[in-house]
Amino acid sequence: MKRIIFALITLLPLLAMAHEVKSPNGNVVVNFYLDSSRPTYEMTYKGRAVVKPSHLGLELAKDKHASKGMGETHLMDGFVIKDVVTSSFDETWQPVWGENSDIRNCYNELAATLRQPSTEREIIIRFRVYDDGIGFRYEFPQQEALNYFLIKDERTEFAMTGDHTAWWLPGDYDTQEQVTQQTRLSEIRGRHKQAVNWGNSSVAVFSETGVQTSLQMKSDDGLYINIHEAACVDYATMHLELVDAQTTHLTQKLGGNSNVYTPDPQPSDFPLPGVFTFVSHLTPDATGLKGAMQTPCKSPWRTVMVSDDARDMLSSNLILNLNEPCALDDTSWIHPTKYCGVWWEMIVGKSAWNYTDEFPSIKLDQIDWATAKRNGRHAANNDKVKRYIDFAAKNGLDQVLVEGWNVGWEDWANMWKADVFDFVTPYPDFDIAMLNEYAHSKGVKLMMHHETSSSVMNYERHMEDAYNLMNRYGYDAVKSGYVGDIIPRGDHHFSQSMNNHYLYCVKQAAKHHIMVNAHEAVRPTGLCRTYPNMVGNESARGQEYEAFGGSNPDHTVILPFTRLQGGPMDYTPGVLETQLSTWSDNPSWVRTTLVGQLALYVTLYSPLQMAADLPENYERFDDAFQFIRDVAVDWSKSIYLEAEPADYITVARKAKGTDNWFVGGKCDENGHTAELKLDFLDKGRKYECVIYADAKNAHYEFNPKAYVITRKTVKQGDKLKLKEAPGGGFAISLKAL
Amino acid sequence: MKRIIFALITLLPLLAMAHEVKSPNGNVVVNFYLDSSRPTYEMTYKGRAVVKPSHLGLELAKDKHASKGMGETHLMDGFVIKDVVTSSFDETWQPVWGENSDIRNCYNELAATLRQPSTEREIIIRFRVYDDGIGFRYEFPQQEALNYFLIKDERTEFAMTGDHTAWWLPGDYDTQEQVTQQTRLSEIRGRHKQAVNWGNSSVAVFSETGVQTSLQMKSDDGLYINIHEAACVDYATMHLELVDAQTTHLTQKLGGNSNVYTPDPQPSDFPLPGVFTFVSHLTPDATGLKGAMQTPCKSPWRTVMVSDDARDMLSSNLILNLNEPCALDDTSWIHPTKYCGVWWEMIVGKSAWNYTDEFPSIKLDQIDWATAKRNGRHAANNDKVKRYIDFAAKNGLDQVLVEGWNVGWEDWANMWKADVFDFVTPYPDFDIAMLNEYAHSKGVKLMMHHETSSSVMNYERHMEDAYNLMNRYGYDAVKSGYVGDIIPRGDHHFSQSMNNHYLYCVKQAAKHHIMVNAHEAVRPTGLCRTYPNMVGNESARGQEYEAFGGSNPDHTVILPFTRLQGGPMDYTPGVLETQLSTWSDNPSWVRTTLVGQLALYVTLYSPLQMAADLPENYERFDDAFQFIRDVAVDWSKSIYLEAEPADYITVARKAKGTDNWFVGGKCDENGHTAELKLDFLDKGRKYECVIYADAKNAHYEFNPKAYVITRKTVKQGDKLKLKEAPGGGFAISLKAL
Repeated sequence: MKRIIFALITLLPLLAMAHEVKSPNGNVVVNFYLDSSRPTYEMTYKGRAVVKPSHLGLELAKDKHASKGMGETHLMDGFVIKDVVTSSFDETWQPVWGENSDIRNCYNELAATLRQPSTEREIIIRFRVYDDGIGFRYEFPQQEALNYFLIKDERTEFAMTGDHTAWWLPGDYDTQEQVTQQTRLSEIRGRHKQAVNWGNSSVAVFSETGVQTSLQMKSDDGLYINIHEAACVDYATMHLELVDAQTTHLTQKLGGNSNVYTPDPQPSDFPLPGVFTFVSHLTPDATGLKGAMQTPCKSPWRTVMVSDDARDMLSSNLILNLNEPCALDDTSWIHPTKYCGVWWEMIVGKSAWNYTDEFPSIKLDQIDWATAKRNGRHAANNDKVKRYIDFAAKNGLDQVLVEGWNVGWEDWANMWKADVFDFVTPYPDFDIAMLNEYAHSKGVKLMMHHETSSSVMNYERHMEDAYNLMNRYGYDAVKSGYVGDIIPRGDHHFSQSMNNHYLYCVKQAAKHHIMVNAHEAVRPTGLCRTYPNMVGNESARGQEYEAFGGSNPDHTVILPFTRLQGGPMDYTPGVLETQLSTWSDNPSWVRTTLVGQLALYVTLYSPLQMAADLPENYERFDDAFQFIRDVAVDWSKSIYLEAEPADYITVARKAKGTDNWFVGGKCDENGHTAELKLDFLDKGRKYECVIYADAKNAHYEFNPKAYVITRKTVKQGDKLKLKEAPGGGFAISLKAL
Repeated sequence: MKRIIFALITLLPLLAMAHEVKSPNGNVVVNFYLDSSRPTYEMTYKGRAVVKPSHLGLELAKDKHASKGMGETHLMDGFVIKDVVTSSFDETWQPVWGENSDIRNCYNELAATLRQPSTEREIIIRFRVYDDGIGFRYEFPQQEALNYFLIKDERTEFAMTGDHTAWWLPGDYDTQEQVTQQTRLSEIRGRHKQAVNWGNSSVAVFSETGVQTSLQMKSDDGLYINIHEAACVDYATMHLELVDAQTTHLTQKLGGNSNVYTPDPQPSDFPLPGVFTFVSHLTPDATGLKGAMQTPCKSPWRTVMVSDDARDMLSSNLILNLNEPCALDDTSWIHPTKYCGVWWEMIVGKSAWNYTDEFPSIKLDQIDWATAKRNGRHAANNDKVKRYIDFAAKNGLDQVLVEGWNVGWEDWANMWKADVFDFVTPYPDFDIAMLNEYAHSKGVKLMMHHETSSSVMNYERHMEDAYNLMNRYGYDAVKSGYVGDIIPRGDHHFSQSMNNHYLYCVKQAAKHHIMVNAHEAVRPTGLCRTYPNMVGNESARGQEYEAFGGSNPDHTVILPFTRLQGGPMDYTPGVLETQLSTWSDNPSWVRTTLVGQLALYVTLYSPLQMAADLPENYERFDDAFQFIRDVAVDWSKSIYLEAEPADYITVARKAKGTDNWFVGGKCDENGHTAELKLDFLDKGRKYECVIYADAKNAHYEFNPKAYVITRKTVKQGDKLKLKEAPGGGFAISLKAL
């Protein structure tokens, strides 16, 4: 690891002059200054405005214990600049797993200490400027005048330069499983209501112009801009609210549920038509407060990525770089994992998580499971699990996920049940000792499943026992779930306390050498750098929605620009039988071609990749399944060859510890022709190339399972022209000879 | 144990006829019937009305998951009677500890199954009628039409017969440390605001006529009536709201925060002037809901005790009898305990819980305690604790409580700190191994202290480690504390979830053979019968308030009628140096005489009795301290000889396992003369009698420490006339010769 730090301390006069900091190559420039005592920044890329002058600050809430120092004085204005420190940083670090084995973290930094003379409080606003974007955060040093405080809301502005095209999800405190909307910024309000996933079990939208991050945008002049956050620790998750011409009106309409900072209105606070400014909006707790803070502390990094090349949005390591280095001493037990599981047949509705239909409702301590009447639909039974273990062993899959193994699934969701699962008691037909032994004898591990039903206190009460059970039987990975509304009632999935809970689980799991893949949890912000046992998350609309009516064909060529910015997603690709009605009563169908499913193993980076389909379906498409057998799950190098949000993504990745490459291409409903130059291969070396391509007449709806497998030998400089069907893609394995 | 059960099943015609059930001796009679389809009861005592016709029922809340069976149809009206079952019960049981070694549980029961034809729901209302009062509860059998439900509020009415005198605390979701008010029911509204303890760190009042239970009343014709609840498990704590002539107006004034059931107003729903009806008001969660229920389940018992003799209010076992039998297999490790502790000097302000004043605030994982600068005021240090151990050993006290032993006290309260304590790390000057060894070598145990600062999730995360630490060092009792507002924010001390938390702690502690004494927790409802390791609670204004400005002299002759109905209180008596300024800068003074403090060991029953004063103060009053050395903490028999709420209480108790008796008398600011006939002594036996009495001119304010100790030999039938000074009392030990 190389590390270069040099700091330049500039004790500048306390004037409202602008302080400029440029990225290492000079493309990205930030200016920071006080606008009538309000902290303000602006950002350019190659001389073009990216963020127009935007205010920074936080509104604090008055606490009844204000006499003890928890006053409500806002950290919005009244500031003078005490000092400004600039510095540079350049290091290269190695992630435990990832898209690349080496990641360069190179930036210039500006840290402005601001003093609010009326309160004697000081805060620091720190900017890190990279060649592909910026991160900035608020820091609150320990001080007599600011020891504890409550956040009413953070008021970080991102003033966009025009009516960009945006790929957005409606801002929601509890779910991010919506369909991505592609509209102009000016169209968000009009589209908002229909964008909400009202069918989800926990929906909590807050504004007609509220959107989630990571928010991908494109300007009319071809700039790709992405707003997100990094290292969200002990802080509520940030949403964005667009302050447009109608917001003032909206504020009144919503009965004072305002997200506009108006205690001391200035003409500049009221946006003019044609001005598109996002303001941060944090997730509240049950009382509406956004955070309880104790100094010294800091906000997460607020990030703005920018480039004139869409590929840079995907290859950027800005979010990871803004996170802290690995906090675990020993990471030898963490490993990328390919797995299958007893799951898809339940999602599709062919079998069930629950064991019995005998009881109107379940109280865990009052059921004699041994004598309970089997419903005959329970999937997590010994025979079936052994079948999956055999399948995994035969096909080189590392693990077998089994959902529905533990008692409580009879009435687990949306009933406000506190004591919903105990996470340690198997159903009578799941012999936990036998099955783990059987798996281990075949070189396979079972993967644990902890659905919490969002009953958080209950999960924490049982967590130590649950992790101990995993250790006893040799599980080293858990998929956890947070379906439904949070218990304690009133809390939200993305609040400060819930964010602390998710991280608590990850830290406790690390003590047990357990990897965590939390579904329905908060969207990631790069914390997997610090806690690399956080190997996955869902936190978006996963493949399961293909069984719930389907996702749009462009969905998977949006996700890498948005959800995946913060960390890998357990999307669960690999459903080769795209027509569910061929083996179930479910009329839904997958909105990709079969080959499109193969491509996802390369285009949707994750250290955790499921082969989600049923073994019998894989056996029917065994030649195509060969790609899933072959594809790596950890990489030494990744090169994004083509990219356009919601249109197509083409990426080449080198399998870690080998000289083999894999290339994936995925496109939207319009199809795409990829022209690849194999420049990335080693010079003078030959590669055995297997191409999995859509057949000529393939189509995600009308002919999804038409594919052609071609083998040839290739070398550096060769060109490949690959036609991707509507909703299709391609997958290539390149084995060094 | 003797148990007689005989049941009489009466499948009565489904008419609106009244179903009567009488107490075993016929004094108490309940009538139950439907009033236009609303469940209704009334109660008499010796033919006099106690509760006038009062409706029963619950309002349910509509949940967004209503389609799954959580509809909002109220359980208020629309009922028919399906069947009525009456039965009788008579058994005598033995508590692990208590005021008596045998308790008779003898009642007649009526269980009415009510059917709501429009919803196909059924509930049961069960009455148990004792000679000294009634208990009734709602039962919700498991059924398709009522599987899960949310409680908007319970609407149990208690229609009083007149403008009774009441001893009440303002209804509050978080504290019951107020000064008791003595007013007519009609005066509650006018007194309410000044009755609220606004200085308490968590105040949450809900109505100008809201009061807490147990509520003691006295009618103009001499009936003593007490309303409380028993066996509050998985349910929110009940308050009472007086519906008087102004309530309808108030409802409008409070902006719809109504506690009156008005969806279908009937003339009878609007009380007339001169009608005094209490309606139940449950403690809400953060969203305002009062409970999340899953059938089969039940409400706590709602109790109405009644007698024309005030002594019956104190000798009643109705609340204990309505609780379930002991749930612990092994109770051999549970023992009544007399203790002293490093506590009073901190309460008074002479020393401190915290170790250092060096830091503006504390983050537990960021402080090097070994090098932290001592403030010199930290009480829980090795030398002082050894001094207390020596004192306990010398004087036959079982345990020494030490507060402030663990890191985090620097900024523990009211800062919304989640990670406030870890409950396992001692301050550097508290050698936990050495001190426990030292104590054990002298036959004394240390008593653990867990102040949670109401950060509940944090406590639960550390609880197992904390209990394990106690086991490792030989602690078998913990005083826990819940100062300040509950974290998660928005929850309340007396909510369903917090009630579940307290019981969770008690159950987990039992697994570790640990006794629990929770302060600032919910007021008890007799659960110590079921979990006898729950040896104490505070849940009222304790002796500590004598250092915070003082309590009224009548306070301790009210508590047995109110707070103590649900279970013992760790009042911490025994402050013999009533003038704190003699040894500290605290100008406050104790509102009893010295002898009055001795009396409390007998009049305020508890299996846990502290000798709260400093060793050096006891050494100054060693002859009086002899009573504290001698007095028992567990009893085979208790006889209330005299009682009048807020005036005086005189009680004789026989020490368990001996033939010795102790008698205590306590009075209010007016003094009292007790005339005792020693009828309870064994016939023909002589007793060495030591009388600790107020001196002739003693007075709680002007001459508190004037006392006379008299020794004589007495026998059955002897009479004693004892003059109690204003704010005074007496204490007598009777040793069988």
